[in-house]
Amino acid sequence: MRLSQAAPEQLRELEKSLSEQYLAFQTAGLNLDLTRGKPSAEQLSLSNALDGILNGNYSDGSGTDLRNYGGLDGLPEAKQLFADMLGVQAQDILVGGNGSLPMMYFSLQTALSQGLAGKDSAWSLQGPVKFLAPVPGYDRHFTASQHLGIELIPVAMNEHGPDMDQVEALVKSDPSIKGIWCVPRFSNPTGIVYSDDVVNRMAKLGHIAGDHFRIFWDNAYAVHVLDDQAPVLANLYEACKNAGTEDSVLIFGSTSKITFAGAGVGFMAASASNLSALKDALGYSTIGPDKVNQYRHVKFLKDQATLTKHMQKHAAIMKPRFDAVLQQLKSELGDDDIASWTEPQGGYFISVDTRPGLAKQVIQLAAEAGVKLTPAGAPFPYGKDPQDSNIRIAPSFPTINDLEKATEVFITCLKLATVRQALAS
Amino acid sequence: MRLSQAAPEQLRELEKSLSEQYLAFQTAGLNLDLTRGKPSAEQLSLSNALDGILNGNYSDGSGTDLRNYGGLDGLPEAKQLFADMLGVQAQDILVGGNGSLPMMYFSLQTALSQGLAGKDSAWSLQGPVKFLAPVPGYDRHFTASQHLGIELIPVAMNEHGPDMDQVEALVKSDPSIKGIWCVPRFSNPTGIVYSDDVVNRMAKLGHIAGDHFRIFWDNAYAVHVLDDQAPVLANLYEACKNAGTEDSVLIFGSTSKITFAGAGVGFMAASASNLSALKDALGYSTIGPDKVNQYRHVKFLKDQATLTKHMQKHAAIMKPRFDAVLQQLKSELGDDDIASWTEPQGGYFISVDTRPGLAKQVIQLAAEAGVKLTPAGAPFPYGKDPQDSNIRIAPSFPTINDLEKATEVFITCLKLATVRQALAS
Repeated sequence: MRLSQAAPEQLRELEKSLSEQYLAFQTAGLNLDLTRGKPSAEQLSLSNALDGILNGNYSDGSGTDLRNYGGLDGLPEAKQLFADMLGVQAQDILVGGNGSLPMMYFSLQTALSQGLAGKDSAWSLQGPVKFLAPVPGYDRHFTASQHLGIELIPVAMNEHGPDMDQVEALVKSDPSIKGIWCVPRFSNPTGIVYSDDVVNRMAKLGHIAGDHFRIFWDNAYAVHVLDDQAPVLANLYEACKNAGTEDSVLIFGSTSKITFAGAGVGFMAASASNLSALKDALGYSTIGPDKVNQYRHVKFLKDQATLTKHMQKHAAIMKPRFDAVLQQLKSELGDDDIASWTEPQGGYFISVDTRPGLAKQVIQLAAEAGVKLTPAGAPFPYGKDPQDSNIRIAPSFPTINDLEKATEVFITCLKLATVRQALAS
Repeated sequence: MRLSQAAPEQLRELEKSLSEQYLAFQTAGLNLDLTRGKPSAEQLSLSNALDGILNGNYSDGSGTDLRNYGGLDGLPEAKQLFADMLGVQAQDILVGGNGSLPMMYFSLQTALSQGLAGKDSAWSLQGPVKFLAPVPGYDRHFTASQHLGIELIPVAMNEHGPDMDQVEALVKSDPSIKGIWCVPRFSNPTGIVYSDDVVNRMAKLGHIAGDHFRIFWDNAYAVHVLDDQAPVLANLYEACKNAGTEDSVLIFGSTSKITFAGAGVGFMAASASNLSALKDALGYSTIGPDKVNQYRHVKFLKDQATLTKHMQKHAAIMKPRFDAVLQQLKSELGDDDIASWTEPQGGYFISVDTRPGLAKQVIQLAAEAGVKLTPAGAPFPYGKDPQDSNIRIAPSFPTINDLEKATEVFITCLKLATVRQALAS
């Protein structure tokens, strides 16, 4: 039923039956969680061979003793593996510790206080620092920036990526904008893949933005496809090299959602000039990364063919979970004008947009019926969704049964809130 | 022979024979290294059981899935293990990544920019920030501080620890002194253990120093004894609690030289108030530490009795290396007035003091004969040894044969430089 065409009497009846359903869920004492993009135990078990994979041999291919100090920027074989994954050269890679967030945070800190292109390039010397934040986006990007005193300017996301007209106009008009946050493939939370046109226009931002502008290209879901037809992401680093702007991009990745979340390996790709500044800064704060764990990953993931096969096993676990949510959304809401949602071909999230002004209420209703959803506004800078309409669903962690039940509750809450809003207006 | 009593003719003859010995070393094409406090392969092999120790069971004692996200401050069992090692409670512990240097750096950054006791406590709000640097000390402490803009004020070390009269006078007179660097047991590089009196006076610094003063207590060699009679370090945290100054100390440790250097576990102990500020700051830059590796260490090191036995195996490898250097120093220089040195009962270093003005020259001579020593001045802020007399010897990494040869070369260089100086004066 399209609510906009429903008579008040119909709405009242609907509200009554939805309220009854909702009450039934409330009394069922559910305890379900759709909040975090955490891999399931089944997915994590795909990488159980990691511990013990070295078989007592703690040397890499070149004979380096992995157990001792040394090697600030990672093992050569790990660089090659992750370079192939990101479509860059091994020399462009820095391999780090157990995640990419610390590398992003460290890059922000270094750019702010020391500069990525010599002392004079430190952002903090140039007055207030601003970043563009395509929304909805990843809350950790936003909170890390804010914590370091960076002001965030939201820009709209569409199905091709950030609205590049808006992005270009903003960086042209305000040289204090020093960066933009991007999750270019299977964006968190909308799941879209940046189009070739968006990638090409990104590569040219370095020509029109203020000095020392950097794209923070968090390719967190680079290989996390749900089916073989998933759209491919154009190679930003190549495009930047062609445009002569390779200094304007920092690319991040990790195996957090390939092997173990929290015990994987983080890495980044950047130009020689950027890497040189980052390695200099790293040298003051660490003696080097965990080479033993890096080499475990080299032995386990081996090459791109092995990696692809491994990711197909993830997809076989993830796809039914996405389908469970999407099929219910379609069958329950497909003919209505209640909400819209994305149908990602990869990544970890489904993004639902309610009618304006309802996200908080839906999340509150779901919480009171025992279904936890990501807090409203989390994917927006300062936690404020101006439309109060975006809800992020993370289907990876629960069992399919729990997921189906949680989605049922969520849809009931969504309908109930929407009908109540329609009645009140 | 005591050079101060030697006649010019004797000195000239000695110079001639030493020059000949030196030339022989030069032509031998040696390539030996006494620079870094790196464990030897033999020591590292003591912990080879780490990889594979989980036997496919990635759950800790409380059922936490070690492979997934979660747990910012470390596993409870790891906290207990390292608390027992440092003589504090598990609740006082934060377990981190693969080393303690990043935790020290992060603590400095947090104290500088956010404060460890609320926003108003940020050191950077209070003008220039200074730290006391007992010398000779650990170069990484000094370079990390300098990199963050902290000015270092050298204070003298004696056989009981830092000169506490000097320390107390300085912190009383200058409230911009916000901290002091300490390696309290088997100090780097002198190998001494802080006396009970020094520890007790340290515990009271919080009462006389400026606001938000913090002792950076890097207990890097807490359990790294060479023999059972090694002096015990008094418990600073207990002393601070008795004095009501527990907020004034941050204690650091790691397994870098217990298990694997670079693939071990770093940890720290601090008051609830300090830990709360650090955990808040950590939450912006990481999703959590590598719990899998933490649990490997729990399984491997188990408890203090197991740890002690493990460290005895290290001692059995290290002691002959220390002895090889010390015996030669004694037999070659014991009756002379050429140099003085420490005879540590633990840790990783032997510290040699030449006559003033000779350290650089001795290191240069050794380098030209194929023996690499830590650069002169490295254990001093800004790399400047005002006496140009301190040389740090790291005996852990070379084989005993190499160590004996390197020591022989070193002693020849030391004698040669000293005789030449005596001749020129």
